[in-house]
Amino acid sequence: MMKCLIIAAGKGDRLRQKGESKPLIPILGIPLIERVIRSALEAGVDGFYVVSGYHRPEVNAFMSCLAGRLDTLITPIVNGDYEKGNGLSVLKAREYLHEPFLLLMADHLFDPSIARKIMGFPLADGEIVLGVDNNTGNRLVDMADVTRVRTEGGTIREIGKGLIDFNGLDTGIFLCSPAIFNALERCAKESGDTSLSGAVRILAVEGRAKALDVSGYFLIDVDDPAAFRKAENALLANLRGKTNDGPVSRYFNRPLSERISRRLVNYQITPTHISLFSFLCCVLAAGLFTLSGYPALLLGGLLAQFASIIDGCDGEVARLKLQTSAYGAWLDAVLDRYADALLLFGLTWHEYATKTEGQVLLIGFFAIIGSFILSYTADKYDGFMRECVSSGKGFRLGRDVRIALIFFGALLNQAFLTLVVIAIVMNVETIRRIIICRDRE
Amino acid sequence: MMKCLIIAAGKGDRLRQKGESKPLIPILGIPLIERVIRSALEAGVDGFYVVSGYHRPEVNAFMSCLAGRLDTLITPIVNGDYEKGNGLSVLKAREYLHEPFLLLMADHLFDPSIARKIMGFPLADGEIVLGVDNNTGNRLVDMADVTRVRTEGGTIREIGKGLIDFNGLDTGIFLCSPAIFNALERCAKESGDTSLSGAVRILAVEGRAKALDVSGYFLIDVDDPAAFRKAENALLANLRGKTNDGPVSRYFNRPLSERISRRLVNYQITPTHISLFSFLCCVLAAGLFTLSGYPALLLGGLLAQFASIIDGCDGEVARLKLQTSAYGAWLDAVLDRYADALLLFGLTWHEYATKTEGQVLLIGFFAIIGSFILSYTADKYDGFMRECVSSGKGFRLGRDVRIALIFFGALLNQAFLTLVVIAIVMNVETIRRIIICRDRE
Repeated sequence: MMKCLIIAAGKGDRLRQKGESKPLIPILGIPLIERVIRSALEAGVDGFYVVSGYHRPEVNAFMSCLAGRLDTLITPIVNGDYEKGNGLSVLKAREYLHEPFLLLMADHLFDPSIARKIMGFPLADGEIVLGVDNNTGNRLVDMADVTRVRTEGGTIREIGKGLIDFNGLDTGIFLCSPAIFNALERCAKESGDTSLSGAVRILAVEGRAKALDVSGYFLIDVDDPAAFRKAENALLANLRGKTNDGPVSRYFNRPLSERISRRLVNYQITPTHISLFSFLCCVLAAGLFTLSGYPALLLGGLLAQFASIIDGCDGEVARLKLQTSAYGAWLDAVLDRYADALLLFGLTWHEYATKTEGQVLLIGFFAIIGSFILSYTADKYDGFMRECVSSGKGFRLGRDVRIALIFFGALLNQAFLTLVVIAIVMNVETIRRIIICRDRE
Repeated sequence: MMKCLIIAAGKGDRLRQKGESKPLIPILGIPLIERVIRSALEAGVDGFYVVSGYHRPEVNAFMSCLAGRLDTLITPIVNGDYEKGNGLSVLKAREYLHEPFLLLMADHLFDPSIARKIMGFPLADGEIVLGVDNNTGNRLVDMADVTRVRTEGGTIREIGKGLIDFNGLDTGIFLCSPAIFNALERCAKESGDTSLSGAVRILAVEGRAKALDVSGYFLIDVDDPAAFRKAENALLANLRGKTNDGPVSRYFNRPLSERISRRLVNYQITPTHISLFSFLCCVLAAGLFTLSGYPALLLGGLLAQFASIIDGCDGEVARLKLQTSAYGAWLDAVLDRYADALLLFGLTWHEYATKTEGQVLLIGFFAIIGSFILSYTADKYDGFMRECVSSGKGFRLGRDVRIALIFFGALLNQAFLTLVVIAIVMNVETIRRIIICRDRE
């Protein structure tokens, strides 16, 4: 198991507008340093040393709270000289670290795979290895500010911001043997340079600073508002890849819900609150449907579609705030089933109240049962069935399509036609699934 | 990997009434020897030698068909002297087997764990080991006919049917080194005894016949009609342990469906046929419900309850005939959901046709949605949710209870009350599950 040292002492002036203490600035609801610590934990680190300087009471208070929440050990280290080079922060940890350790910056967000890769590097005694982004055209990197490196065959030759002849970018992610402390000390004594780069330069001269290519993974130095914005977008984009959306969701609901979620993460709103709110909107919409007349129908349709958009936010907020839970996903699914059934029942009632024909009830019933079975067949028996149900077709026929049909039906004042379409589409799709699954058995 | 030799040459006169060739006599739809081969496969055997004698064309024809079905290798061996001792059948396999092998009798059904245990025995060169049932009071054993053994510290001292001083029963399951062949030959030459027990006796004298206790596992020698009946009951009882039944199922439906399944296995009826038949009964019952008047209601209720009983048979037949499949279970569940919804809709219609009150529709709707959600919550997310949903209560509120409520409601001519009860019970139970799951999160 490996310990991790995190440098969180600097002032971070360029992000002052976002918050006083840079490591604690929340990005999409989660403080920068919490994201760094969670990524390191995911990579397999089992204990942290956090060097704080500027605003250190706040940083330390947050750390002790976070240690409890994540059930990990976080040891605070103080660096009063935080106005000087960041190498001094590393040096403060000297008495704690006698084995190779992971070294991270509190404001560098990264994919845990990078840390895992670095931690697996076969480090020789007295060496350090720096994660280097060989993609020097990386669009997430601020080329004016980044530290550049020149490597030859896996060994760092030169490092510095001003480097003109370079082939990689410093990611700020290191695996260090304790030799780094001597290098830092020597560097400060010999040249007065208290930066970490200075120490790396000293080791590089002796061929003891290695480089490991980590290009291709998500990685960003959140240093100024532009980088902050880029990081937000990257996190949101990362989100999108993980969902299994239907067409209405993908092209209409999701872009809107992401805009909403991006704001919601800054409030004390839990994903479950959002699920409940979306459910209540559907209940209200169903209630409006039961009233007669076009205005009620239209309003109900609008509300239902709004609820469908909001329904995307619970999962998004949960993922952005790292609060996903099996229970939350389950509750959302259960509420969705109630909501769908209520909307269709409301629509049936709306139509039946004027026509009083038995066939309306029958069609409404089949719309409800078909919708339900479709959700049921997609979920029952996770492995084989879900795979067989979701493959072999261009798009997923799910809740987003169902609600969109209700919305357009209401818009066009065609409650009955909507029910007929839903009843046919949902039941036919169920039969199709039964046949597909039988053939693949 | 290990080969397996199966002795299937004898006449088996005492089971003549069940079929001409004993190894091919089906027990609950599957021939004895097929059950033996499937158990051996499950234990890890990777190829078979089957010695046939009496009725060998039929046995060999079945074997070549079975080899294809189970995708395994079965080599037929002929023993013309099947009227003599069973040791001769083993001797016929001499040229095929040069490594330790599992030796089984075609008419001894057993739990695969026994074979796995025996195959793991550390057999020394020149030794054999016999699975011995140390529970000499085993009720599945015919004490008048069983071969008895006396063991001392894991070594067989004496073996024979007439033994008075004994402490174990011969299970007919051996792990043999090829030394068994010499022992068989010597035994036949020296004393004219061509039985397998005779060869075991010779090895026992030299301390080379070991015994391994396999008491406690399912094991039966299907030798006569009484044993056949015992074996059937044991297989059926074994079935019961594997289901997660609600109270109505356990105490009412299951005992009846087992009696039906026991007969159904003897016909060319697949589990899917049974699922479809049960579904059609429900459709018919729902149709009867939509008619007015008590007779239709009563008949529908009876038919629904009948369908609920039959609904147990598909799984039973599948397990007894070793035809279970994820698709079959999934299709059954999907049809059950349609059937439940149709029954409740029929009941709602029945009531609404006479009263024409909106509240009937509302209650009917909630009965349908509640029933559906209950099935949905029990299945969504296999692991955590199902566990949390099914624990913490004395009985499972499922389909068996729902249909029984419908049945009694019809019997008492109380369609509306039934809907009210189902609507309340199912939705309250859903809310209870939501709360339980939240608390356990």
